[in-house]
Amino acid sequence: MSAEEAAELIRHDEILGVSGFTLAGYPKAVPTALAKRAERLHAQGKPFQVSLFSGASTGDECDGALARANAIRYRAPYQSNKDLRSAINQGKIFYTDAHLGIMGRWIRSGALPHPTTAIIEATEVSDDGKIRLSTSCGNSMEFLQMADRIIVELNSLYGDALAGIHDCYLPDMPPHARPIPVSHVLDRVGTDFVQVDPEKIVAIVHTQAGDSVHPFTEPDEISKTIAGHILEFLAHERKKGRLPSGLPYQSGVGNVANAVLTAMARNPLQEPISLFTEVIQEAVFELIQSDKLLGASGTALTCSAKARKYFLANAFALKRKFVLRPQEVSNHPEVIRRLGVIAMNTAIECDIFGNVNSSHICGSSVMNGIGGSADFSRNCLLGFFMTPSTAKNGTISAIVPLVSHLDHSDHETDIFVTEQGLADLRGLDPVARAHRIIDACSHPDYRQQLNDYLNYSVKSAKGKHIPIALDRAFNMHLRFLSDGSMKE
Amino acid sequence: MSAEEAAELIRHDEILGVSGFTLAGYPKAVPTALAKRAERLHAQGKPFQVSLFSGASTGDECDGALARANAIRYRAPYQSNKDLRSAINQGKIFYTDAHLGIMGRWIRSGALPHPTTAIIEATEVSDDGKIRLSTSCGNSMEFLQMADRIIVELNSLYGDALAGIHDCYLPDMPPHARPIPVSHVLDRVGTDFVQVDPEKIVAIVHTQAGDSVHPFTEPDEISKTIAGHILEFLAHERKKGRLPSGLPYQSGVGNVANAVLTAMARNPLQEPISLFTEVIQEAVFELIQSDKLLGASGTALTCSAKARKYFLANAFALKRKFVLRPQEVSNHPEVIRRLGVIAMNTAIECDIFGNVNSSHICGSSVMNGIGGSADFSRNCLLGFFMTPSTAKNGTISAIVPLVSHLDHSDHETDIFVTEQGLADLRGLDPVARAHRIIDACSHPDYRQQLNDYLNYSVKSAKGKHIPIALDRAFNMHLRFLSDGSMKE
Repeated sequence: MSAEEAAELIRHDEILGVSGFTLAGYPKAVPTALAKRAERLHAQGKPFQVSLFSGASTGDECDGALARANAIRYRAPYQSNKDLRSAINQGKIFYTDAHLGIMGRWIRSGALPHPTTAIIEATEVSDDGKIRLSTSCGNSMEFLQMADRIIVELNSLYGDALAGIHDCYLPDMPPHARPIPVSHVLDRVGTDFVQVDPEKIVAIVHTQAGDSVHPFTEPDEISKTIAGHILEFLAHERKKGRLPSGLPYQSGVGNVANAVLTAMARNPLQEPISLFTEVIQEAVFELIQSDKLLGASGTALTCSAKARKYFLANAFALKRKFVLRPQEVSNHPEVIRRLGVIAMNTAIECDIFGNVNSSHICGSSVMNGIGGSADFSRNCLLGFFMTPSTAKNGTISAIVPLVSHLDHSDHETDIFVTEQGLADLRGLDPVARAHRIIDACSHPDYRQQLNDYLNYSVKSAKGKHIPIALDRAFNMHLRFLSDGSMKE
Repeated sequence: MSAEEAAELIRHDEILGVSGFTLAGYPKAVPTALAKRAERLHAQGKPFQVSLFSGASTGDECDGALARANAIRYRAPYQSNKDLRSAINQGKIFYTDAHLGIMGRWIRSGALPHPTTAIIEATEVSDDGKIRLSTSCGNSMEFLQMADRIIVELNSLYGDALAGIHDCYLPDMPPHARPIPVSHVLDRVGTDFVQVDPEKIVAIVHTQAGDSVHPFTEPDEISKTIAGHILEFLAHERKKGRLPSGLPYQSGVGNVANAVLTAMARNPLQEPISLFTEVIQEAVFELIQSDKLLGASGTALTCSAKARKYFLANAFALKRKFVLRPQEVSNHPEVIRRLGVIAMNTAIECDIFGNVNSSHICGSSVMNGIGGSADFSRNCLLGFFMTPSTAKNGTISAIVPLVSHLDHSDHETDIFVTEQGLADLRGLDPVARAHRIIDACSHPDYRQQLNDYLNYSVKSAKGKHIPIALDRAFNMHLRFLSDGSMKE
């Protein structure tokens, strides 16, 4: 069936569940055709909008095309597309930002309505309903199980290179749930395909387009400095006997996280590591090439065109080192806590008491979303939040008196790192935390201002446990909003 | 050995790990003697302070006596004592508020230093180091394992009434951890005693004092109304097929939580329930007496003098319905998520976007702490936060534009309930959440003010995803601090 014909099957006001996690394995042809159809209908004065559930962000062919066509009413649980983000921040699209590890469970339990149509990228479909997914698992299993109808985008680009990489297993639903039997990064506990009722498959659309993943860029100096602080701290903790070897790493999306993996790959003294993470990113290939990867478990494999070529040429060997799982498992508290993951996630801003904002600029404009950062930070054995100490040419300080939006409370931020330095916050009371963060992590241009605030708040706050000055807590943000800079 | 002699064994600057969880099973004689010793030393101009780790709060004989004696330098992870709280809020005692489910893991991993001396209330100690705990497990296993020295308060009050109630099992530490094999509320997976190295026991002090637990009070009208909303909602969800039967309940500490259990006990249509919770509170006995309790798992059993009498008289039968576990297990994400717990916790305030403050008045003065509320709210299948809509004779609104302290982000607050009504927030985008919370939960005296704020913030916020007005977000709190009322 053509993508256009498949798009005709979708009705106004449906809930679509699409495959895809952070630009890996999302449907391309049908959403693009659906966007065109929405535009035609809108031109005729007819309403056409859908709710869009996914694993995480999808590519411009899906989120971007549908947002520009004004075809999305509601979106969950994550996005990173420029045009979609802009529409959300203009209040034109309703968006629920959710922990990525819990979205599938919400749908299975009925806390959220189930998708009526699932649109899933696959590499193989059998007559009896066995579907092999492509470069991500995401929430595809849940959508395939729960949806009334299934549209498959059958992508021939990968041949059988991805066959066997998936571990399709969903945790039991309560009250009769058993332990998730994953105790090691590469444990396989499910099937390598998803079994669906073949009667539900209403369309198979043939495609051959790769994921639109940006090429890997070399880490900049600031990211390299942050990575250096982290590696130095890990070595120190290991020496102190506080960090057993063999713990897997989780690495968030973005330049700084990539820089840590790259630094490990290039450090001749680095022992081989394993990853238990969401997204197996391109930096992983450098770990493999330097013989430093034992194995990587994720829910998505993001490859730029160059990395895809490398993967396809070496798929047979590489696949033994990779497992792709549903995000309910890759991000599950049970498994993350059991494995003792070392988590590394990017912050937008951090306040002096250690609260972290991962998602909203000045509290109101969503950037991408909380993603899986809390799934990991809350359950890891050791967690890092990292960010450059300033943004926008120094007009924004990443260290503020109070985060303008709070995704991670001080209870789950172990270590905070900027290029200025690293603050180990474990066990510190709030005032001690404030001094350590200001001294170790803030940019010198903002240190005086932050210390002045702390002195004022310690004096003025009614309670001295967390001396917060409600009358001045957002002054830096307000100055930025009015003057374009947080600087005094 | 006398309590005074045992107290002499403790040196200035030690870290003490004491048994006890929410006024259950804490040491009484030695801390009281230690407080007296500290006062004597202080009178001689000598320094004497300790760091105090516990399961959760302890009784006045421990937290209160030591705080009044100025004998505590640092306290973690929870407290509820008037004098201790006051000293913390005056900045005289350093206090780290922590998730109760993770404290033991922090100590075992070395993220926090280990206690040098453990002071543990027990009901039995054998020559070869088998210790039976008393009315709580808390972090006692971890402290007994990790401490250099052990002081036992051997309490004869309970006889052998508590023997067999404990399930002493700690999760493996990474990287070689296995699943926690608890799949049902009453599953027993450990021993009913803690094995310690008998060489570490430096003192056994005989005692016979009960836990100082306040008598159970009848729920007030507001608590009953909140409980009614919750039970009505649960029935509705069950009817809609979104709530399988057999899910266990967690019930936080406090009047409102007690009211829910009491309402269940008194409802002739209520099916028998099970509890997977932190504290098995007195309201549970009413469930038992009305044949509505299948079983209860917790880390503590709090009994007022009256309830203790009932328990001691019926211990043999009651024990089969109770399991006390270490708080690393009672509050473990793995088990809570597996069992599909329905969580009910008390909030201090909730903002219009669904963020919850469980711990700090006006952001700065700690009340008790976050406790285990996040262990449950983050991993439950369905979670309630509940509070009366106003406090202090109506001068404080529990619904505010922005929480002054954030313990639970909008990502993990499913349902918010006041006596005014219930707001089901699942899947709602931020603006929809704001309307629902204001309409359903806020007190009529504050509704206009909250709507005015929302109208202003929707207009003024740069991003419309979470329209927050940083210049007015804390106006209600600031008015309360200056005028004694949040009312305009």
